[in-house]
Amino acid sequence: MNILWVYAHPEPRSLNGSLRKAALEQLHADGHTVEQSDLYAMQWNPLIRPADYDHDPTERFQVANASSSALAAGTQTPDIVAEQQKLLRADAVVLQFPLWWFSMPAIMKGWVDRVFVEGFGYGIRRADGRSRRYGDGMLAGKRAMIVVSMGGSEHTVSPRGINGDLHELLYPIQHGILFYTGMSVLPPVLIASADRMTETDYAAAESGLVQRVKSLFTDQPIPYRTQNDGDYDRRYVLRDDIEPEAIGIRVHTTT
Amino acid sequence: MNILWVYAHPEPRSLNGSLRKAALEQLHADGHTVEQSDLYAMQWNPLIRPADYDHDPTERFQVANASSSALAAGTQTPDIVAEQQKLLRADAVVLQFPLWWFSMPAIMKGWVDRVFVEGFGYGIRRADGRSRRYGDGMLAGKRAMIVVSMGGSEHTVSPRGINGDLHELLYPIQHGILFYTGMSVLPPVLIASADRMTETDYAAAESGLVQRVKSLFTDQPIPYRTQNDGDYDRRYVLRDDIEPEAIGIRVHTTT
Repeated sequence: MNILWVYAHPEPRSLNGSLRKAALEQLHADGHTVEQSDLYAMQWNPLIRPADYDHDPTERFQVANASSSALAAGTQTPDIVAEQQKLLRADAVVLQFPLWWFSMPAIMKGWVDRVFVEGFGYGIRRADGRSRRYGDGMLAGKRAMIVVSMGGSEHTVSPRGINGDLHELLYPIQHGILFYTGMSVLPPVLIASADRMTETDYAAAESGLVQRVKSLFTDQPIPYRTQNDGDYDRRYVLRDDIEPEAIGIRVHTTT
Repeated sequence: MNILWVYAHPEPRSLNGSLRKAALEQLHADGHTVEQSDLYAMQWNPLIRPADYDHDPTERFQVANASSSALAAGTQTPDIVAEQQKLLRADAVVLQFPLWWFSMPAIMKGWVDRVFVEGFGYGIRRADGRSRRYGDGMLAGKRAMIVVSMGGSEHTVSPRGINGDLHELLYPIQHGILFYTGMSVLPPVLIASADRMTETDYAAAESGLVQRVKSLFTDQPIPYRTQNDGDYDRRYVLRDDIEPEAIGIRVHTTT
């Protein structure tokens, strides 16, 4: 299989750098090929601008229109096209980043902002008029997984931890980006208490990540509800008869 | 009062640009002063690098340590210091952005990543050993509000909408950034269906925003639980006897 490993840390000598090295070694040992997008090393430009989509700067810039038109016309900038090609070649996509302010670093957000263009990752209309999204996107069939480190303890992102439940904190990324474009999202790999690890802690974290990498193509994805298989009404709201009393992010996962 | 208006859109002639203009006119009419951080216009650099914090690039770069040391030593870059000074002068902070991938554009994420340094916004130890965070941060006493536009309809971010409940989608920002540093967070202003507005729709959206701007200093903030007033145990997990059956982001708000 071919794995795209996207990495967003300014320091290769970091904990994240060591973990990546171990994970990539395991993937190679298992006979996979790996492509990388090491965003800081690539000096990735994270800012959407009119020039990305060959847009006349004297005219009003509407991002969704300009980007999808450029995709159709083949006029996106080469750096965006290169990342889209990597995604198309991948059987699995791994996003590895330190949790900065309970989300991804700006450089990775800008990779998503610029590369996941309407019509590439999502948004194509089906014959029934519904758009292809949420399990039905253009990247369906691929797997995705987040590997995330944080300074705080695992307790703080537990279901009643003050920072918020990890599953819900990552929902905008796992559901709103990865599943949105059709990918099957595996549970995240959390490296907690990253700023105060002993050697034993590190060995356990590395071993845990290596195990998850070994089962990348066999682990069960998070059972998010698909958009177009009957659970949502025409307004894309969960049907009244499904978990009638429940509200919030949790209703979008079965079980 | 003094308001810091932070704006992240690449096109001043956009819907967001028009809404900002109307909001700023109202603030001025009410006798307030306004400072702006128009991030695209400023060409804000969103990427944390060792040079931000006068860090020797030959040594391993640990972001939290390097940034808090630079804050203490007075060696942060001038662009970061200027934004910190604006925050300190502000009585209220408004973040206005289009919802890209259910979060803020990369340029605004990078404003947070670089400016909200440990020891500036948060993280100072109290006499009892607990850190100042979540209602008890360095920016306590200030108000904060998000103004966010999205292409989709309001239904899709309702409590059972497929994109996820807006309150929970914005939790990493409202709770994890703004409340974390001590600010009182007002309910967000949502401009939905932004890509298909009639003139009547726009007039309603502008009027709604102007009303919210007029009541910026009188509206009730979201009642997030504070970290250090007894609701959380020593691991920063909600006490067992408070809403014992509840889990997820919702438990961190009183009702």
